[in-house]
Amino acid sequence: MQEYIYMDYAATTPAAPEVLRGMTAAAEVMWMNPSAVYRHAEPVRAAVEKARGQTADLIHAASTEIFFTSGGTEADNQALTAALEYGGRKGKHIITTKMEHPAVLRTCEYLERTGRAEVTYLDVPSDGVVRPEQIAQAVRPDTVLISVMLANNEVGTIQPIREISEIARANGILLHTDAVQAVGHIPVDVKELQADLLSASGHKFYGPKGTGFLYVRKGLRLPPLIHGGRQEKGRRAGTENIPGMTGMGIAAELAAGSLDQHMKQERKLRDYMTGKMQAEIPHCIVNGSMEKRLPGNVNLSFEGVPAEYILVALDMHNICASAGSACSAGLPDPSHVLRAMGRSNEEAYQAVRFSLSYRNTEEEIDTVVSCTAEAVRRYRAGGRK
Amino acid sequence: MQEYIYMDYAATTPAAPEVLRGMTAAAEVMWMNPSAVYRHAEPVRAAVEKARGQTADLIHAASTEIFFTSGGTEADNQALTAALEYGGRKGKHIITTKMEHPAVLRTCEYLERTGRAEVTYLDVPSDGVVRPEQIAQAVRPDTVLISVMLANNEVGTIQPIREISEIARANGILLHTDAVQAVGHIPVDVKELQADLLSASGHKFYGPKGTGFLYVRKGLRLPPLIHGGRQEKGRRAGTENIPGMTGMGIAAELAAGSLDQHMKQERKLRDYMTGKMQAEIPHCIVNGSMEKRLPGNVNLSFEGVPAEYILVALDMHNICASAGSACSAGLPDPSHVLRAMGRSNEEAYQAVRFSLSYRNTEEEIDTVVSCTAEAVRRYRAGGRK
Repeated sequence: MQEYIYMDYAATTPAAPEVLRGMTAAAEVMWMNPSAVYRHAEPVRAAVEKARGQTADLIHAASTEIFFTSGGTEADNQALTAALEYGGRKGKHIITTKMEHPAVLRTCEYLERTGRAEVTYLDVPSDGVVRPEQIAQAVRPDTVLISVMLANNEVGTIQPIREISEIARANGILLHTDAVQAVGHIPVDVKELQADLLSASGHKFYGPKGTGFLYVRKGLRLPPLIHGGRQEKGRRAGTENIPGMTGMGIAAELAAGSLDQHMKQERKLRDYMTGKMQAEIPHCIVNGSMEKRLPGNVNLSFEGVPAEYILVALDMHNICASAGSACSAGLPDPSHVLRAMGRSNEEAYQAVRFSLSYRNTEEEIDTVVSCTAEAVRRYRAGGRK
Repeated sequence: MQEYIYMDYAATTPAAPEVLRGMTAAAEVMWMNPSAVYRHAEPVRAAVEKARGQTADLIHAASTEIFFTSGGTEADNQALTAALEYGGRKGKHIITTKMEHPAVLRTCEYLERTGRAEVTYLDVPSDGVVRPEQIAQAVRPDTVLISVMLANNEVGTIQPIREISEIARANGILLHTDAVQAVGHIPVDVKELQADLLSASGHKFYGPKGTGFLYVRKGLRLPPLIHGGRQEKGRRAGTENIPGMTGMGIAAELAAGSLDQHMKQERKLRDYMTGKMQAEIPHCIVNGSMEKRLPGNVNLSFEGVPAEYILVALDMHNICASAGSACSAGLPDPSHVLRAMGRSNEEAYQAVRFSLSYRNTEEEIDTVVSCTAEAVRRYRAGGRK
């Protein structure tokens, strides 16, 4: 297939070459079952713990606080379900926002449907940043969990988790944050955030697909989501995916080492792209706060033009971008995130997400801006507004 | 580390070279998110469906009946939880056996603890083979699910799933079978078994770790265990692990192609080993039926000798074997499978599992038998019985 310009890094990232090499080596040599008693399985156990340490370091956690999962979605499901069971005596009320990832929203809905939770879904201000006061006002005596994402997957806005944690602590409520879009892209320090639970996904930071983890603050003894063997200290049953864990560990170490440099580069590309789009295309709106925003996120609406039209045009030019998140892409739903931010249904159909990496170039951006401008012009000239 | 003799293939198998090559190629080239709308993601979607077809073929299912998971344990958890929600109006009674894998037993216990299930756990006859009559007698008007494994992971006994399915069908009950030890090792045909749900794990048949699947009979619309995006037709959320799926697909195709030959070879090795052990070691008992048994399973008790003693001695000779399953290995529990078969606690501490592959040789077996005989002699000479 032809060369392409990839600006959908929030959907997934390619595994780094070091990650692939580490995974292959692990699969070839460390294939024994780490639960086995014989000495030949010892290096496998050591590999798991090495990966756990590398992963922990990325978010400034202790390695005993990291529990490997098959991905961010599983980690979110576990966090919510387990927190509810853990806090069961106090109540079953959860506070979350309408802009969360489907992994959180669908799990909340499921827990409601099965009578295990009552959930308050908060709207968010038009800048896509939840206000701590909103959370404080929603607290009830039976609230057991607050779940707010660290960075939004569509508009890239960064949420005030530290402030929300303080409200949670003051009220004896657990705080979970879906940090899938943040980990490996911005500094994440669980001590500073004071989070009780944090989910992340390996493939979002150049690690392997099928990997993720749940951070569980020391002292919290949460039940598992997946029951069975005693792997992961009884919190996540199933034979360990050693190559996956190894790969995520390497990706975590790489991310930690280059975070500052990549952030700087991505912020520069983001601002260049946003500025150029606004300069060249009339009625181009930036969705979400520019201040509290992931360094690689460019989310724009071109007034009157459906995102789908633009994405098809870009695709013809071998440009990969998204409307909304990848998880609901291809489906004719308006962005639930923009709806949560108070936009109309029509407006929620217009948001295009370009998610950049330090690997992108200004030259690529120039091409994408010019193709987008052309598509917008063509659509508007057709009078289809 | 030194060369070793591996006889713990039921704990895990090394991924085949073809599997590793396929995974690496997929990770390098097919890394985009299959949910994306652009054309460059199309080959990724095609790769997922190719793997689904290969996997389906191994158990004679339609590819639309295969739902990928992160492993056998997750598939078991999903089968039980979802079947219960699906059959909710009729009741919440589950019939299973005491010899099931912890992935089934712990999930049942969890569902009981949270008030969602009532579970009948059946003892099994001394040969480790459940009798269909036992199941029939346990059926209640509120029974919604029968879960019996296809092949036991410790003693390797093969269960009469087809006969049990008939009882299930006659009573409008769903039938789930944990086929983790069977798939890829003996012929498995879901049409013949008439199973509604079947779980399997990739790493048990020379596929990748972190992969598995749940077969769901056409027409059954079960809810997911992991909620979120609409991957896997809404039955299993989370970005697809393409390299893992690809690897499992290749492993499935390889297994299907060599099943007869490998079974013949393993059966020969198994019978050679069993015969030689019994000839050379007095008071050596075979655990479980020899007729209804996985071709590679050798499970023996050496009267009066704790399995742990033998395993340590074998480990000193670089021989890898297990007591009970890998999932509880290293822990001082007696085998719950032998307990279910009516053995005493002391007897349940004595079972050693050698799980063979077509890759093992008679020469290796000779070494293992001689080392085992020596250990047994030494222990018995010490008068520690």
